[in-house]
Amino acid sequence: MRLSPSAAGLYPIAPTPFFPDGRLDEASLDTLIEGYLKAGATGVTVLGIMGEAPKLEPEEAILIAQRFIEGFGDRPVIVGVSAPGFAAMRSLSHAVMERGASGVMIAPPPHLRTDDQIVGYYAQAIEAIGPDIPFVIQDYPLTLSVQMTPAVIRRIVMDNPSSVMLKHEDWPGLEKISTLRAFQAEGSMRPISILTGNGGLFLDFEMERGADGAMTGYAFPEMLARVVALQRAGSRDAAHDLFDAHLPLLRYEQQQGVGLAVRKYVLMRRGLIACDAQRRPGTSLTAAARAEVDYLLTRLAMKDPLARL
Amino acid sequence: MRLSPSAAGLYPIAPTPFFPDGRLDEASLDTLIEGYLKAGATGVTVLGIMGEAPKLEPEEAILIAQRFIEGFGDRPVIVGVSAPGFAAMRSLSHAVMERGASGVMIAPPPHLRTDDQIVGYYAQAIEAIGPDIPFVIQDYPLTLSVQMTPAVIRRIVMDNPSSVMLKHEDWPGLEKISTLRAFQAEGSMRPISILTGNGGLFLDFEMERGADGAMTGYAFPEMLARVVALQRAGSRDAAHDLFDAHLPLLRYEQQQGVGLAVRKYVLMRRGLIACDAQRRPGTSLTAAARAEVDYLLTRLAMKDPLARL
Amino acid sequence: MRLSPSAAGLYPIAPTPFFPDGRLDEASLDTLIEGYLKAGATGVTVLGIMGEAPKLEPEEAILIAQRFIEGFGDRPVIVGVSAPGFAAMRSLSHAVMERGASGVMIAPPPHLRTDDQIVGYYAQAIEAIGPDIPFVIQDYPLTLSVQMTPAVIRRIVMDNPSSVMLKHEDWPGLEKISTLRAFQAEGSMRPISILTGNGGLFLDFEMERGADGAMTGYAFPEMLARVVALQRAGSRDAAHDLFDAHLPLLRYEQQQGVGLAVRKYVLMRRGLIACDAQRRPGTSLTAAARAEVDYLLTRLAMKDPLARL
Amino acid sequence: MRLSPSAAGLYPIAPTPFFPDGRLDEASLDTLIEGYLKAGATGVTVLGIMGEAPKLEPEEAILIAQRFIEGFGDRPVIVGVSAPGFAAMRSLSHAVMERGASGVMIAPPPHLRTDDQIVGYYAQAIEAIGPDIPFVIQDYPLTLSVQMTPAVIRRIVMDNPSSVMLKHEDWPGLEKISTLRAFQAEGSMRPISILTGNGGLFLDFEMERGADGAMTGYAFPEMLARVVALQRAGSRDAAHDLFDAHLPLLRYEQQQGVGLAVRKYVLMRRGLIACDAQRRPGTSLTAAARAEVDYLLTRLAMKDPLARL
Repeated sequence: MRLSPSAAGLYPIAPTPFFPDGRLDEASLDTLIEGYLKAGATGVTVLGIMGEAPKLEPEEAILIAQRFIEGFGDRPVIVGVSAPGFAAMRSLSHAVMERGASGVMIAPPPHLRTDDQIVGYYAQAIEAIGPDIPFVIQDYPLTLSVQMTPAVIRRIVMDNPSSVMLKHEDWPGLEKISTLRAFQAEGSMRPISILTGNGGLFLDFEMERGADGAMTGYAFPEMLARVVALQRAGSRDAAHDLFDAHLPLLRYEQQQGVGLAVRKYVLMRRGLIACDAQRRPGTSLTAAARAEVDYLLTRLAMKDPLARL
Repeated sequence: MRLSPSAAGLYPIAPTPFFPDGRLDEASLDTLIEGYLKAGATGVTVLGIMGEAPKLEPEEAILIAQRFIEGFGDRPVIVGVSAPGFAAMRSLSHAVMERGASGVMIAPPPHLRTDDQIVGYYAQAIEAIGPDIPFVIQDYPLTLSVQMTPAVIRRIVMDNPSSVMLKHEDWPGLEKISTLRAFQAEGSMRPISILTGNGGLFLDFEMERGADGAMTGYAFPEMLARVVALQRAGSRDAAHDLFDAHLPLLRYEQQQGVGLAVRKYVLMRRGLIACDAQRRPGTSLTAAARAEVDYLLTRLAMKDPLARL
Repeated sequence: MRLSPSAAGLYPIAPTPFFPDGRLDEASLDTLIEGYLKAGATGVTVLGIMGEAPKLEPEEAILIAQRFIEGFGDRPVIVGVSAPGFAAMRSLSHAVMERGASGVMIAPPPHLRTDDQIVGYYAQAIEAIGPDIPFVIQDYPLTLSVQMTPAVIRRIVMDNPSSVMLKHEDWPGLEKISTLRAFQAEGSMRPISILTGNGGLFLDFEMERGADGAMTGYAFPEMLARVVALQRAGSRDAAHDLFDAHLPLLRYEQQQGVGLAVRKYVLMRRGLIACDAQRRPGTSLTAAARAEVDYLLTRLAMKDPLARL
Repeated sequence: MRLSPSAAGLYPIAPTPFFPDGRLDEASLDTLIEGYLKAGATGVTVLGIMGEAPKLEPEEAILIAQRFIEGFGDRPVIVGVSAPGFAAMRSLSHAVMERGASGVMIAPPPHLRTDDQIVGYYAQAIEAIGPDIPFVIQDYPLTLSVQMTPAVIRRIVMDNPSSVMLKHEDWPGLEKISTLRAFQAEGSMRPISILTGNGGLFLDFEMERGADGAMTGYAFPEMLARVVALQRAGSRDAAHDLFDAHLPLLRYEQQQGVGLAVRKYVLMRRGLIACDAQRRPGTSLTAAARAEVDYLLTRLAMKDPLARL
């Protein structure tokens, strides 16, 4: 099933589970997949920044993608294929599409500055992977240091028919969603799916601004799925109530540099992965930080019964 | 009263109130001061980044500082004196100290990279303003793009006896507080006051890691004062309960680039300033954003009666 | 005399002479002006980055501008008015225009990233200073970290009738000149003057690409004036011969961070200023570096008799 | 033969030759090797930034390294092994050392800021590749945006016995060489080899400050070899005369972003590679730029007979 502009719901960004010695933990891939499906994931995104993709060998990357594709059955799997060279981007894209991926995600390299550089980069990338693979534009200025205006995103969308989705991760970013939806309303941009990132820190309002769902790695994906569903059902207050209950932990998890360590720790405590290790170079939590997360988990469990460990 | 390493509590970062045409709104300085005192401010910091200091004429800067010094009586007023040249830094420092300021705050210029550059910059700055003026080190990598390790902060503290306080605004930054307090415990750094920024986003845990209080501009300073007081009194759960009630709004306010507009809007709605305008170049809120803040205010009022407008 | 799009020739960027204790050296302003006039300067630019403008008090800035305006008689003086706030930009612009300046130069602040941000900034700046003051767009990505495409420059030019000149300091930048001149040829951009910077490192070819002259601070401005004149007269080989003779020193001078120290040292050795000090924070040359510059001066004097000290 | 701290002379940085369709041009590897040996190369460095290393497939990288190792016989080949993850760095390092490489070169990733981060990164990298592989520290702030002070380099050298060489590419960087040599003289740092980059733009003086040779890709490596030899023989004026003759072209080649295109074009014109294409994403020269390089080549041939095509 190919990714389409009508995609919506929850696409968790999957971390890659490792053993403490750095080896890939394949068994945890299965528990993770099971956890995501139970949590209500519509699809999933693998090999993103949070997936420690640049640290993987090419064959490991393909193995991980394949495992998720099998595990997710007919639900779409998006594969991050960002790479310094187009040769690697093309070979990974083709490898995973042949194995059943639904689309690929492409981030702009950090040195791009001007509007034309960004638009030109996507033109070259799509020329490299071919015009038939649905792709996601990743807009993540805080980490990638590339700033795309709504008009630049529109140019990429209108230039490339295979562009079907925006992973929206600008910060602040609420006005960007409104502007893009206004482009669609006035007919200057064809419709695309917008899924939001940033750890979910503004998911409550992003849905109200017109997002179609979430694509992020918060360690309680069931909350993301429920907030998306509540907002789509028009239950605004209930969506905010649920979101607010998780916000103290979510905020703690959404720290640059430390976030992945927190996320893996919570996923480990939840039993979704066996070990919270990162492949090197990585970070780990101090005892003080773990105790803080434990405290937040205890408090969360009192507010959201589904979050009890 | 000179600022000392034992300073603690709440030092709000004051915005500068303007009229829509860009003129300084002096009357609002008085309502703002009154509001801070009522909220439980121990002191105040003026002419910081949030105070739009670089847009002020030199005589305006002095006027604002003087007004706060008068209004705060015997409570300490810290004045931001960061400037591209040491001549301007010295003249402003001397002008405000003569008028009764308690100390000055110095941010490193954005081009500094290496440890030695940072330490050397502070040495030159203190040589410029003189060794008798108590000063605050401002550590704010997200905006200033200067990264100070705990060891660099220790070098600045140990090299400069007039260094009495750290405005801690690293992100993530909890471990930095722990490390600095460990330096003090082992005797390798003399004690300094640590007040935390970042809009208060981690104030709940920062107090537990050893912070002495808050120095930030969240538009409900009474919450900051109460969380600081509760944590100092050992009432951990109560501190977190109060903090969590405010977190949805606080998170909304703590957005780069937009934050000051949100903050001024809330202060205006609370009656602490007459108008939420920024001097140009500035930003303003869309109608959608104002409605979102209004919604957050309504929800907050249900959880914290003191936050009712 | 107002700056116009037909401006051409040499506009040296003037450094600001200081005494070792940091005081402004007014007498050296006069010897510097005399030197520039003798060297064949068509005009001059003061209070630029190389002029240590951010370290000056407002009244010093006006004094320096006035001195140059008087000294240059009917030749145009351009004044750098870049400032963090528009209030300061406006007041300095008006002060110097009233005193007889020919135009102002505006650099974009370092945080601008997208095309729209840059265009919008110039719109706001011109609104602030008024539409009647001829202004120069400063395009200097290496130092300012703002990248303007030719299309962005065209937008600024076409949006603002008072935009008359580009200080071209992109690196690499030869294609940018060709593209802008092609815009003019096809009628999509009205003609502007293009003067080039970067210490003159590509002046030889910049003239061939369509530049109108040089605006930079190389310490032998007579070489810049002669290369511009030779190229305008069609004497390509002679222009390159002269340029190549100076290139070893020019290359040495055009080092980020150190360049101003080299430049002031050579100007001091030439007798154009009394002292090579910079106001703090600044840099100075080691003995080894001074010896290297002396060696380069000796070698230069053998190739260009006019460069003998 | 393992790389040692006594390495000296010329180690050209080799580009990777491609066909216009992006395929690796293996035959040109042989002509390039032959050209380097004829030019007087002491050794060679492959898979550096200029070698478009991030665009290569892992098997291509090994093939290129192997070809150079065979072609260079008993002269040392250094292989760039910088990678986002340590797994890839280790596997490439081991693969090339087994095939006869003399050492590896490691650049710091762009996000490193503080002294401790940089030192810690090298500690982790050496732990990953093992303590037995001689390695080169690559210090290239302009492109990598990581600034290493001399003291940081000393820490890396003293912490890691397998550190034998510095590829010095700071700009400006002359004082750095002097400081490092002073460290050695005072006994606080053990001796290392220092080879300099930056396209050779300061090679004339770098040798006088204590560099052991050049490691850069200027398209006339024989000039680099001769300047190094002349300076080592004490023929200062002759070294500068030769250097100055090449400086106009060298300066043109040493442009960020465009430099590789110029370099490949000159190497193609010299017959060292068959085609000046870059693998995508890459840049190419306009007709105007090619004509400028041709003009510079003509002028150079008049000054240096060995540079005749």
